[in-house]
Amino acid sequence: MDFLTEFKPLTVQPEQIEEKSFQMIDEEIGEHPFTPEQYRVAQRVIHASADFELGKSMLFHPKAIEAGIQAIRSGKKVVADVQMIQSGANKTRIEKYGGEIKVYISDPDVMKEAKRLNTTRAIISMRKAIKEADGGIYAIGNAPTALLELIRLIKEGEAKPGLIIGMPVGFVSAAESKEELAKLDVPFITNIGRKGGSTVTVAALNAISILADRV
Amino acid sequence: MDFLTEFKPLTVQPEQIEEKSFQMIDEEIGEHPFTPEQYRVAQRVIHASADFELGKSMLFHPKAIEAGIQAIRSGKKVVADVQMIQSGANKTRIEKYGGEIKVYISDPDVMKEAKRLNTTRAIISMRKAIKEADGGIYAIGNAPTALLELIRLIKEGEAKPGLIIGMPVGFVSAAESKEELAKLDVPFITNIGRKGGSTVTVAALNAISILADRV
Repeated sequence: MDFLTEFKPLTVQPEQIEEKSFQMIDEEIGEHPFTPEQYRVAQRVIHASADFELGKSMLFHPKAIEAGIQAIRSGKKVVADVQMIQSGANKTRIEKYGGEIKVYISDPDVMKEAKRLNTTRAIISMRKAIKEADGGIYAIGNAPTALLELIRLIKEGEAKPGLIIGMPVGFVSAAESKEELAKLDVPFITNIGRKGGSTVTVAALNAISILADRV
Repeated sequence: MDFLTEFKPLTVQPEQIEEKSFQMIDEEIGEHPFTPEQYRVAQRVIHASADFELGKSMLFHPKAIEAGIQAIRSGKKVVADVQMIQSGANKTRIEKYGGEIKVYISDPDVMKEAKRLNTTRAIISMRKAIKEADGGIYAIGNAPTALLELIRLIKEGEAKPGLIIGMPVGFVSAAESKEELAKLDVPFITNIGRKGGSTVTVAALNAISILADRV
């Protein structure tokens, strides 16, 4: 490859790179089960992972998109299980409507309580979140234990999230936690299997805030 | 599934979850081309992505592990292309040896210069990085333009990174940038194809700092 040719992409602007990527996804995805708005979310997840298998394995509660848009527009809090999601997400669009992204996992009271109960900080962070951010969007991309605890709190009638974006990754409990989420009749966005993670959770959250911010 | 059975994983501690996950990866990976130390890195990437295809597509320069350990132990800076990597990486082990993780992409001078030259902030952030952090570890998980610029600076003799962890994700230039990286005779860790991202880049970086921190 010629050196100059090879560096042509350097002159492409970020917006153009994104547009070109979305075109490539449109061309390659083939058949999929999504509504046009659900596809906006799946497309952004595929963009963030370069993984069609992951994107096409996504599951949407019928009210997920509407509930997510509503939560953003009414300035509800967004709760992330880990700091990476807070770092990666577009905060401007969330703050524009009065919302903010909260992460409770490293709060001193959460750490202390987790130690006292000999359990994970992720679990205790969800117990704190439902007190401070119920009705908000829960973006869980890392800890299956956080998602399982949130599901338990919902089943016990203690939590009423606006939308759950539950896409934890991993070998222990991740796939199982998402299966349990998909059984609930609450607005959720999730995926089947072990894959997931902070970057795709950010992508789904950003897609929702973009939909909310459209006129 | 019974409710109590279903929540048994909640009592598993984080260290046990990681250990169990690593065992499952050992059992499922089958044949792979890695040395024992390279495998520690690939295993952690698979743990972070639940993606054996991605993990097994990793490429290591023969001196990558040794160079990474050396850079950590001598307190060299770690440069990340995006904030998510700084958020997700284990900073304690890096700071223990005097190092720190730097992200230049949102620095005012970088933003100003990118605007002036009508190019990406990722590119300009690499030009700043080689002045302030040469000899360090470059952890690039998001922006192919950052990796391509770093490759250009190396070819022109302007940059001498200690180790490049180059695993950007995406449809435009990501795979190509990694192919170019793999042609260089500098210590690199990369992977073949479009997949990658901040979480797997963090996983590779953490694996290196764990190896460096072993007695």
